[in-house]
Amino acid sequence: GAGFCAIPFKQADQLTHDSLIKRAASLVTDSSTSFLSQATLALIDATTDYSKAVHTLIALQKRYLDALGKLSAAEEDTIWQVIIGQRAEVNDRRDECARFESTWVSAAKLCETAAEAAYVSGAEHASITMRTNMQVAQAQVDEARKLSAEAERKLAESKVMEVERMSQYVTSLENKDEEEVPEAYLRED
Amino acid sequence: GAGFCAIPFKQADQLTHDSLIKRAASLVTDSSTSFLSQATLALIDATTDYSKAVHTLIALQKRYLDALGKLSAAEEDTIWQVIIGQRAEVNDRRDECARFESTWVSAAKLCETAAEAAYVSGAEHASITMRTNMQVAQAQVDEARKLSAEAERKLAESKVMEVERMSQYVTSLENKDEEEVPEAYLRED
Repeated sequence: GAGFCAIPFKQADQLTHDSLIKRAASLVTDSSTSFLSQATLALIDATTDYSKAVHTLIALQKRYLDALGKLSAAEEDTIWQVIIGQRAEVNDRRDECARFESTWVSAAKLCETAAEAAYVSGAEHASITMRTNMQVAQAQVDEARKLSAEAERKLAESKVMEVERMSQYVTSLENKDEEEVPEAYLRED
Repeated sequence: GAGFCAIPFKQADQLTHDSLIKRAASLVTDSSTSFLSQATLALIDATTDYSKAVHTLIALQKRYLDALGKLSAAEEDTIWQVIIGQRAEVNDRRDECARFESTWVSAAKLCETAAEAAYVSGAEHASITMRTNMQVAQAQVDEARKLSAEAERKLAESKVMEVERMSQYVTSLENKDEEEVPEAYLRED
């Protein structure tokens, strides 16, 4: 233990206001970076969940449309319950995305301010590191936003398909009705 | 040691994105508060130093003016060296105030952003605590600014006094010169 006494103590006068401010600014950039990371991870997870929910909904709707006219009323009802549940799930996941998106925007704004404050305080290194971290987070969130936009696009496509398929089905039903009309007509006569 | 096993472990599923974001936001408000404190202390100290430097300068100038005409050229020169040195000191202290003032403004802006981010992240308590700390810092800085303004005012007053006193002195010298003119006139003739 005695050997350690040879290590010189840092002098107390190094703790100037400037150095204390610089340290404090670095702690702010550290914690802001960590906050941005949490917000980024949350937004990415929420977007992934939303995207998954959308794909599940599309798959369910497709299965329903493919089976149109081949289902009993009870089967149709069961599938509809599942589809309605999945639509609620999609809405919940979309709300969560919006919530984490606003947290992320807030975190990014905070990091911007923290980087400026660090720079003003002479903690240039912390400021530069922070900006690099912000760029990485921005790139990750851009990817997540693409995923989300892709999900939105597929959902819109599937709605168009659903409307087309339903109108085809209704037309085929009407055609059947027309074919059946003479018989019914005859029966009524 | 075995007795502690009765304490239930916190469940891992409590570490949701929301709770992690909230914690991260709290760390940001903590570090921002600490940064603001350092900036506040630095600004108060710088202002106190500036104010002291101004008062010393005013005292030196007053002593010089009181002694006007009673000093040898060498004594006058020495006092002037001290006054010039003290004026440089006042300027340095004023620059330091301006520097810490800009750090403080930056820190206050950061705290504002951190409080918003904490609020958005559901860390309302951290947000409220932060705002209280900001008010305290603001009050301290307002006091420091008053001190600084008071020093500025005294410095301006002393400049007016110096100009008046110097012009009186110059007038009295001119009067002496006029009295001396006839003698010189006679000698030159």
